[in-house]
Amino acid sequence: MTEISEQYRIEQEPFYHPQGDEIALYQAAYQARMPVMIKGPTGCGKSRFIEHMAWRLKRPLITVACNEDMTASDLVGRYLLDADGTRWLDGPLTVAARIGAICYLDEVVEARQDTTVVIHPLTDHRRTLPLDKKGEVVAAHPDFQLVISYNPGYQSLMKDLKQSTKQRFSALDFDYAPESVEAEIICRETGIDADTASKLVKIGHAARNLKGHGLDEGISTRLLVYGAQLIGQGVEPIAACRMALVRPITDDGDIRATLDHAIDSLFA
Amino acid sequence: MTEISEQYRIEQEPFYHPQGDEIALYQAAYQARMPVMIKGPTGCGKSRFIEHMAWRLKRPLITVACNEDMTASDLVGRYLLDADGTRWLDGPLTVAARIGAICYLDEVVEARQDTTVVIHPLTDHRRTLPLDKKGEVVAAHPDFQLVISYNPGYQSLMKDLKQSTKQRFSALDFDYAPESVEAEIICRETGIDADTASKLVKIGHAARNLKGHGLDEGISTRLLVYGAQLIGQGVEPIAACRMALVRPITDDGDIRATLDHAIDSLFA
Amino acid sequence: MTEISEQYRIEQEPFYHPQGDEIALYQAAYQARMPVMIKGPTGCGKSRFIEHMAWRLKRPLITVACNEDMTASDLVGRYLLDADGTRWLDGPLTVAARIGAICYLDEVVEARQDTTVVIHPLTDHRRTLPLDKKGEVVAAHPDFQLVISYNPGYQSLMKDLKQSTKQRFSALDFDYAPESVEAEIICRETGIDADTASKLVKIGHAARNLKGHGLDEGISTRLLVYGAQLIGQGVEPIAACRMALVRPITDDGDIRATLDHAIDSLFA
Amino acid sequence: MTEISEQYRIEQEPFYHPQGDEIALYQAAYQARMPVMIKGPTGCGKSRFIEHMAWRLKRPLITVACNEDMTASDLVGRYLLDADGTRWLDGPLTVAARIGAICYLDEVVEARQDTTVVIHPLTDHRRTLPLDKKGEVVAAHPDFQLVISYNPGYQSLMKDLKQSTKQRFSALDFDYAPESVEAEIICRETGIDADTASKLVKIGHAARNLKGHGLDEGISTRLLVYGAQLIGQGVEPIAACRMALVRPITDDGDIRATLDHAIDSLFA
Amino acid sequence: MTEISEQYRIEQEPFYHPQGDEIALYQAAYQARMPVMIKGPTGCGKSRFIEHMAWRLKRPLITVACNEDMTASDLVGRYLLDADGTRWLDGPLTVAARIGAICYLDEVVEARQDTTVVIHPLTDHRRTLPLDKKGEVVAAHPDFQLVISYNPGYQSLMKDLKQSTKQRFSALDFDYAPESVEAEIICRETGIDADTASKLVKIGHAARNLKGHGLDEGISTRLLVYGAQLIGQGVEPIAACRMALVRPITDDGDIRATLDHAIDSLFA
Amino acid sequence: MTEISEQYRIEQEPFYHPQGDEIALYQAAYQARMPVMIKGPTGCGKSRFIEHMAWRLKRPLITVACNEDMTASDLVGRYLLDADGTRWLDGPLTVAARIGAICYLDEVVEARQDTTVVIHPLTDHRRTLPLDKKGEVVAAHPDFQLVISYNPGYQSLMKDLKQSTKQRFSALDFDYAPESVEAEIICRETGIDADTASKLVKIGHAARNLKGHGLDEGISTRLLVYGAQLIGQGVEPIAACRMALVRPITDDGDIRATLDHAIDSLFA
Repeated sequence: MTEISEQYRIEQEPFYHPQGDEIALYQAAYQARMPVMIKGPTGCGKSRFIEHMAWRLKRPLITVACNEDMTASDLVGRYLLDADGTRWLDGPLTVAARIGAICYLDEVVEARQDTTVVIHPLTDHRRTLPLDKKGEVVAAHPDFQLVISYNPGYQSLMKDLKQSTKQRFSALDFDYAPESVEAEIICRETGIDADTASKLVKIGHAARNLKGHGLDEGISTRLLVYGAQLIGQGVEPIAACRMALVRPITDDGDIRATLDHAIDSLFA
Repeated sequence: MTEISEQYRIEQEPFYHPQGDEIALYQAAYQARMPVMIKGPTGCGKSRFIEHMAWRLKRPLITVACNEDMTASDLVGRYLLDADGTRWLDGPLTVAARIGAICYLDEVVEARQDTTVVIHPLTDHRRTLPLDKKGEVVAAHPDFQLVISYNPGYQSLMKDLKQSTKQRFSALDFDYAPESVEAEIICRETGIDADTASKLVKIGHAARNLKGHGLDEGISTRLLVYGAQLIGQGVEPIAACRMALVRPITDDGDIRATLDHAIDSLFA
Repeated sequence: MTEISEQYRIEQEPFYHPQGDEIALYQAAYQARMPVMIKGPTGCGKSRFIEHMAWRLKRPLITVACNEDMTASDLVGRYLLDADGTRWLDGPLTVAARIGAICYLDEVVEARQDTTVVIHPLTDHRRTLPLDKKGEVVAAHPDFQLVISYNPGYQSLMKDLKQSTKQRFSALDFDYAPESVEAEIICRETGIDADTASKLVKIGHAARNLKGHGLDEGISTRLLVYGAQLIGQGVEPIAACRMALVRPITDDGDIRATLDHAIDSLFA
Repeated sequence: MTEISEQYRIEQEPFYHPQGDEIALYQAAYQARMPVMIKGPTGCGKSRFIEHMAWRLKRPLITVACNEDMTASDLVGRYLLDADGTRWLDGPLTVAARIGAICYLDEVVEARQDTTVVIHPLTDHRRTLPLDKKGEVVAAHPDFQLVISYNPGYQSLMKDLKQSTKQRFSALDFDYAPESVEAEIICRETGIDADTASKLVKIGHAARNLKGHGLDEGISTRLLVYGAQLIGQGVEPIAACRMALVRPITDDGDIRATLDHAIDSLFA
Repeated sequence: MTEISEQYRIEQEPFYHPQGDEIALYQAAYQARMPVMIKGPTGCGKSRFIEHMAWRLKRPLITVACNEDMTASDLVGRYLLDADGTRWLDGPLTVAARIGAICYLDEVVEARQDTTVVIHPLTDHRRTLPLDKKGEVVAAHPDFQLVISYNPGYQSLMKDLKQSTKQRFSALDFDYAPESVEAEIICRETGIDADTASKLVKIGHAARNLKGHGLDEGISTRLLVYGAQLIGQGVEPIAACRMALVRPITDDGDIRATLDHAIDSLFA
Repeated sequence: MTEISEQYRIEQEPFYHPQGDEIALYQAAYQARMPVMIKGPTGCGKSRFIEHMAWRLKRPLITVACNEDMTASDLVGRYLLDADGTRWLDGPLTVAARIGAICYLDEVVEARQDTTVVIHPLTDHRRTLPLDKKGEVVAAHPDFQLVISYNPGYQSLMKDLKQSTKQRFSALDFDYAPESVEAEIICRETGIDADTASKLVKIGHAARNLKGHGLDEGISTRLLVYGAQLIGQGVEPIAACRMALVRPITDDGDIRATLDHAIDSLFA
């Protein structure tokens, strides 16, 4: 198991700028091996936080990008046909339970509600994972922890976690970093000057204020980093902002005009 | 069969605090090998009760977390391809019927209505399980019993048990434990002091009163235990309550404010 | 074929209390090998009647619990992969046609309408079952008969038999037994005293009168037997009736109160 | 191919009582190997007519009961896994095309509209069946003919043949036989006396007049034969009529009363 | 490849009566290997035209009848399990691309919109077919051409080609032949006299005028040929017309009466 | 890997006529290995641009035409059954990530929203592709880049990229080339004279002005090239325009008349 475990170990500290007491809260939850739900909008740093915590806690991290077509077998494992007949292949959740990893189910609301049922026995006093098809009950490694992420903005009547799933998790709220922190993140990640970073953050905030007024979602920190990278490659700031911040998120003429205007006035 | 049976045997007494005559009623039902349906809200201790009864009756317990994608084959068994051709693998229901286990179908309403049809011949005078695909009729072991759980709060036009299934079960109602019992459970499970446990229970009751008035489900005993665990890890009670009791169950600003206010006034 | 046939033979007379001329009518239909449809509410004894008739006619009985996911292959048969390639495995309907059994398709309305099409050539002058996938046409054994059950209460726009299926069956109506007969059945099955049995039947009738007025279905004879069994195990009659007669069939507070009141007034 | 062909040959003349010039018309269509569509209500003798014509024309007959789950592969053929790899197995349509049989697709409207597309190249000047998955194009045997049946009463917006399919067939309308012919059929098939047969036919006509006024479909000739068979087994005519003519086709109290009344007045 | 190619070659000239400059236009498109879309109602001769052009251009023709259940693999190819493992089997589109055939996708609107995406790289400057599952990119043979047919009358909101597919094809409109030409076709195909052929065409035109006024589609040339064939077999013209022209296309009493009246007045 | 890489390398410069600074912007994005989204209408040259850039950057290009039935396995890879058991076959996305290709997902909106989730870890700081079914995490080659295309005109409530996907891409807007450039492209691709090319472009512009007023999409550059090719083959310009520009894109009589009129007035 050791070599499998190493494959999922995070060697170098992932950069993470804390916004509050989230590191201490997460550590307390991990000490109790309590399941944790990370809530927040797209691109605000949820995945980065979990990577940072896995590095800090020195635990391997297994990330699964959930989707509507994911079956319970994709999480738990399946039989493969082999030269010698069928062979069982553990799924990522089973591997994590065996090696004591942090298992991170990213965007868990995307998964079919009932696929998420398989995590239930891992999230109560049992801490077991029954592999019904194999006839084995895996007892979770003492270091195993389950983490899920959740974007409340997506939540709809069609796609929401069941109460019986929600009530198995503690939860931490995330949001975009405050202006100064976000500018610092952009500088650190791209080497851009502080003034340009600050202007990019201003555009980001302008867009986030339009959320619900024509935009489904604001401009994420990731897109601001893209803008800074293009500028770093020598692209004119105005062209870089259009390509990285505006064109990806909307095709609406009015919203584009509003955002382009904000860009022009800042970089002209 | 003995070694399979041992795998599902519960070695140590699972803690269970009775709320009424449910232990005697369940024992009477088991003596008649009568199928039992356990009704009650999420996280009120249904699964724990069954584990306790399996330990008390010294029967192996096989638990199946039901879900919408569960096929009859997942319960009954299937053929696997092997080096020597196909090999039959008993599903959990078949194993339970053979070894005389208590088979517990958790959240059976989640299963497709018609998957539940396969349990019918096990729940009347026949006590048999036809394995149509194998051409075998399994006669249930004399000690076999079937138990299902059911959350009436989920019941909808789309998802409800068929009458022909309901009429095969006796039923026990469960609810959250009364205040003093619930506080005692929290103390025993987490080692927290009685005063803090009592405050946590008060918050739980406040939330349960909001059920149907903005909350789909109250705060379960499990989440109260989470709150106590975080406090036990040194987290400030107010932060612990937010993380364990409020953030997981709702994203509604008003409900959050109401619950946060209750927490503040108790722990300030 | 003889040994297969023996597996489905009913050795001991299943207890059945006739309610009218149904035994003579069924026998006449069987003499003509005419397909029969048994109609009636849940738990009124339809399956028991067919078992009794199979015993009386000395024919093996093959019962299939129909469900929405049942494919034509589940009835007719399929190829299995074997060490020596594929091998055909007869389904239960094919086995019944070959050995001259009574094939009983329980709750046939649950099956997909078009799965039921495969029974058509067995239910007209042809009395054949084409195994399209095997390229074989099975001529039914002269003793073969097809029986289906049908609960008119379930009948909906979505789920009903096709006319071209209905018109291939003669039909017998079933209902709960009259009071005195039902009490006798309960005594015989559980050994309870006649007075208690009579009270249980009274509660059953009270509930059946609520059908369509808040209850989807009344209390079946089976549940009355459960109540008697619990009382036989020493449970207080009132608690036994709640557990066996009321809690399984409804979560509606008013209906529960009405039924609980009837129980209290009879057993107080 | 000869032995396969023999398996589908009809040895004895199936009884068929002509109602008009349908035999001559069908023969003319067969001489031109023109595809034929047989339209008419359930149980009026469509399948029997095709069997009769196959016997008369001395052609083997391959009947396929169509259903919603039937795939093109079920008609055309598929690869089976064998000890020596995969082996192609012709489907019934392909067998019929090769051996020059009449292929009868019963209740073709049940099949998915687009499954029926596979019959197109067999029904125009090409008279070929491309087995795309095998890379073979089967040229139909000169004696091959395609016949489909169709119940206009089922026709709905959801289920109807595509125009491009309809326009590949000539069509014959069928209906229940006139009173005297139908009585003669019943006598011949069951040996019942002419007076009883005539009374049964009267009940049948009464029911057919209720079609569209509470009944989806009238009483078929087949059910009238069932009634006569039960009477032949010694069942009282009134009980036989209820079991064979009324109970199978409706659960509506008023309609049952109307039909029961007609039965009583005829047989009392 | 030569022998495969021969299997799809058209040996004898298929009869085709030109209606305008469609032969010259198609030839010009073929010289540029331009994809062509043939539009027109059911049974007006689209498939016949393509066969004629393939014969005239001396190219093999591979026809695929499209349907809703057709997967991309049905067009492109799939792996088959063999004694020596898996073996790739080219689908008809791949075969056509390799051997330089004309590939004719008949009724392409029936195919799932997104199955049609696989033809895109074959219909632009790339002229390639990527076999993603095989990891091969097939360069189309210089003589390969893609043709699709399309019935505008079927076009609905649910089923229409995507613009990105439409914009890859040139298009030719087809319609039923003018009266004199259609009569000539009928004479040539069936050997019927010119007067009868002319009367049949008149009935066809009467029906086509009812399209949209109670008929979904008029009477195709194919059905007129059927009528002539039945008359050629000695069937009375009026009976032949009912069987071949009216009964197949409608069950509506009024429309039937209108058409029957036209037939009576022409042939009486 | 080298030989695989060569298979996807573009040997000859694909003709591309720049319309603005898109080449410089794309190069800057590629230097940062930033994911790029290309937006624009059907047939305006998006695919051509990516081929040109792959040639210019000397990177292999792997193009995947997305469709609704594409599963994550079609992108990522799957196990194949082999003589020696199962063998893993990389999908096109995995191949691209391993060899450092540009992976171009054409019409990505067609893919099921949740299939697109698999690209997420390749489009953030991780630059990894977890092959869950193989238990391997592929680190992308330093030269790997992901590009997707997107037609805003198709965007509907049912089919749109998720915000969490959009926010992982920078974006470039494309449109049809300006008149003079488009005429030049047509001349270069078909060898037609400048005057005819200019007339064709005029018709194209007339049609694009009808977009949203009866046309879903204008006439693409590709169709204009088709028109020029037909004229080059000797077809009359008016007939060529009807066949290449009008008939493929609409069946609406009014729109056809408008476009035919424009053609007549230009070429008469």
